[in-house]
Amino acid sequence: MRRSEVPTPALLVDIDVLDRNIATMREAAAALGVALRPHAKAHKCVEIAQRVAAADAIGVSCATIGEAEAMALGGVAGILITAPLTSVEALDRLRRLLLRGADVSVVADDPRLVEPLGAVAVAAGRRLPVLVDIDFGMGRTGCVEIADAVALAKVIAAAPNLLYAGIQAYWGNLQQVTPFAERTRLISVQLERVRSALAALQAVNLSPPIVSGGGTGSHRIDAASGLFTEIQPGSYLFMDSCYGTISISENENPFAPSLFVAASVVSSIRPGRVIVNAGWKALAADSGKPVAVRGAPAGATYRFMGDEHGALDFEDGEAPAPGAIVEFLTSHCDPTVNLYSAFHVVRGEEVVDVWPIRARY
Amino acid sequence: MRRSEVPTPALLVDIDVLDRNIATMREAAAALGVALRPHAKAHKCVEIAQRVAAADAIGVSCATIGEAEAMALGGVAGILITAPLTSVEALDRLRRLLLRGADVSVVADDPRLVEPLGAVAVAAGRRLPVLVDIDFGMGRTGCVEIADAVALAKVIAAAPNLLYAGIQAYWGNLQQVTPFAERTRLISVQLERVRSALAALQAVNLSPPIVSGGGTGSHRIDAASGLFTEIQPGSYLFMDSCYGTISISENENPFAPSLFVAASVVSSIRPGRVIVNAGWKALAADSGKPVAVRGAPAGATYRFMGDEHGALDFEDGEAPAPGAIVEFLTSHCDPTVNLYSAFHVVRGEEVVDVWPIRARY
Repeated sequence: MRRSEVPTPALLVDIDVLDRNIATMREAAAALGVALRPHAKAHKCVEIAQRVAAADAIGVSCATIGEAEAMALGGVAGILITAPLTSVEALDRLRRLLLRGADVSVVADDPRLVEPLGAVAVAAGRRLPVLVDIDFGMGRTGCVEIADAVALAKVIAAAPNLLYAGIQAYWGNLQQVTPFAERTRLISVQLERVRSALAALQAVNLSPPIVSGGGTGSHRIDAASGLFTEIQPGSYLFMDSCYGTISISENENPFAPSLFVAASVVSSIRPGRVIVNAGWKALAADSGKPVAVRGAPAGATYRFMGDEHGALDFEDGEAPAPGAIVEFLTSHCDPTVNLYSAFHVVRGEEVVDVWPIRARY
Repeated sequence: MRRSEVPTPALLVDIDVLDRNIATMREAAAALGVALRPHAKAHKCVEIAQRVAAADAIGVSCATIGEAEAMALGGVAGILITAPLTSVEALDRLRRLLLRGADVSVVADDPRLVEPLGAVAVAAGRRLPVLVDIDFGMGRTGCVEIADAVALAKVIAAAPNLLYAGIQAYWGNLQQVTPFAERTRLISVQLERVRSALAALQAVNLSPPIVSGGGTGSHRIDAASGLFTEIQPGSYLFMDSCYGTISISENENPFAPSLFVAASVVSSIRPGRVIVNAGWKALAADSGKPVAVRGAPAGATYRFMGDEHGALDFEDGEAPAPGAIVEFLTSHCDPTVNLYSAFHVVRGEEVVDVWPIRARY
C-alpha cells in the first residue's frame, strides 16, 4: 500500500524518524546516567514499546490498568502504573495481572490504598512493589506534604505483602514552560523539594531505591539534578506542534515529528478553501489546531468544522482536488493517537506495517 | 453488574430516557409531517439504530463510509451518507457495500464527483441515488450558488447509472443559536434560499423527491416550513450540556440527558478537591467542560488535568473516597461517544446490556 492510499482519516508514523527519536533518547539517558521507563500512554502500542525496550529501556510506564494489561500481554516487562488504582474493578484486574506473572509496580498517595493493595498482593501470592506518589506543585495526584509521603512510605514498608520501591516525582504542568530558562528555574524549585523529600526519607532509613519522573520537556533538567534513578518521557517518540516549538535542552530540540494525520479532501468547490474529512473525531482539540504539512497550499490554515470535518483556508496556490490527501501535524500527540485503532507505519511513500493501538476505552 | 461496578472511565446510556427521547422525536416528526432519518454519527451503534428504526424511522444518516458499513452489516436500511465520498479507497468501499445489496444513498457537491460515482454504480451493477448537497451559509460542504446546484442536479440526472434523488440542506452552524427567536430568524433566511432552490429545480423539471436536513436544534423550525421531506437529527437521543441549555421549540426542550460518563476517584487527599480518572481521552474537550451530576459534592466543578485525569473542586460537602464513582454529563455527545468502545446500558442501578460502538477510526 502506498502512503497516499491509506483509508482516511489515518494515523501515520514515520518509522525512521521514530527510530531516530528512540536512539536520541537512549543516548541522552545514558549520558545523563538515568534509566529509561518511557511512557506508553503516548502510543498504547506493544510494537512501539518493544522497539523502545530494545533500545535499553528498563521498562514501560502506563497510565491505566488497561495499558498495563496490553503491555503485559505483549511481553513488555518493567511495567509501572503511574496513577493510583483505586476502584474495586481496577484492583481486581491488577490481581489477575499479577497472577499471570506480569512484572508490575504501582503508585499510591493515600494510606487508605495500602490495605486494598496488600489484599491484591496476598490474593496473587506475590509481593507488589509500590512507589509513593508525591505532588510537586501540579495539584493532581500525589502526597502534598513531605511528612505525609514519609508516613505513607512507612506504612507501605510495614505492609508484609507490599514492597516499598521508591517515589514518583512528576511535574506535568512544567513540561512546556517557555523560555527554557524559566522552565529550568521553576523545576529547580521543585528539585529542592525532591531533595528535602529524599533527606526526610533517608532520616527514617527509607531512601527510595527508585526515583521516577521526567517528561519530554523536563527530562534533561530533571536527570541533570542527579536525584532521579529513571525517567518516563513519552511524547518524544512522536512530537507534536506544541512540543515542536519548545527547547528540550538549552536552545535545542533534538526530536523530530514522526506522527501525522492523513485526511482526504472531500470538498473543493470554493476559492481559497477545501474541506477535509478530519475534525474533532480525528484530531485532538485540547491544545490548539493541527498544522497542514503535506499536500496543502503553502500557508494554509486549519479550522475545526465539526466532528468529521475541517476547513483548510489559503490565500494563494492551487486547491487540492477532491480525493487528494493532506497530512497534518497534530497539536497534541497523546489524545490524537487515542482516536485511532492503528498506526499506519510509513517509510517514505510506502506503508510498511500496521501497528494496533490497544486499550482505548 | 451494578451501575457502580462498571470499568471506568465508562460510557453509560440510560435506556428508559433514550427510549423516551426516541418516542418524543417520533411524535414530533409525525406531527410535523416529515420522515425521520436520524443521524448515526452521534452513536455509531447498530443497537441504537435498530431501536430508532423500530420507531418509524425510514432510515439512518451516516457521516462516513465506515458508519455506513456498520449500519448495513447490522441490517439497518435507508442509509444516507451525508458528506461527499471522494477518495479512491472510500469509493471502493462504497462499491463493495452496493455489491452486497446495501440500501445506500450519497451526496455530491461537485460535478467532478459524478463520473467516479457513476463508475461505482456500474461496477456494482446498481443505480446509485445521489442527493445534491447545497450549502446554506455553513461554509463546509455543499454547492454555494443555487445555479451550481441546478447544474449538478442536471448532470446527475443525465448520468445513466445514477439516480437524482433530491437535495440536502443542513445548517450545523445554526443548531445552537440562542435565544430561540434568533435561531428562528437566522434559519428563516436560509429557508427562503431553500425555497429559491426548489423553484429553480422545479423550473428545469428536477423537483427534488427528497429534501433532507434538520438537526436537533433546528428540526422543528425546518420541518414547520413544509419544505423538507425528512429530518436527520442525532444528538436528541443523548443530549449534552450544550444542547441541554437551549430550547428545541419555543421555550421548551422536550429531550432529557440519557448519556453519562462514569469515572472513579483516584485521589482524595486534598481539602476541596478530588481527582478522577477521566481527562481528554474520556471526555470531549471541544465544547467546554463536563458537569458532575452524580456522586460529587453539590456545586463541584470539573477541570481537565491532562489525558487521563480531571479535578473536581468543591467548597462544601464531604469528599468522595478513593474508588468512588462520579458521573458526568458531557459538553458534546458525539465526540465523547467516539472515545469509547461500547455503551454500558443502564436502567436505574443495574447494567442491563452492553452495546458496541462501531466504526471508530
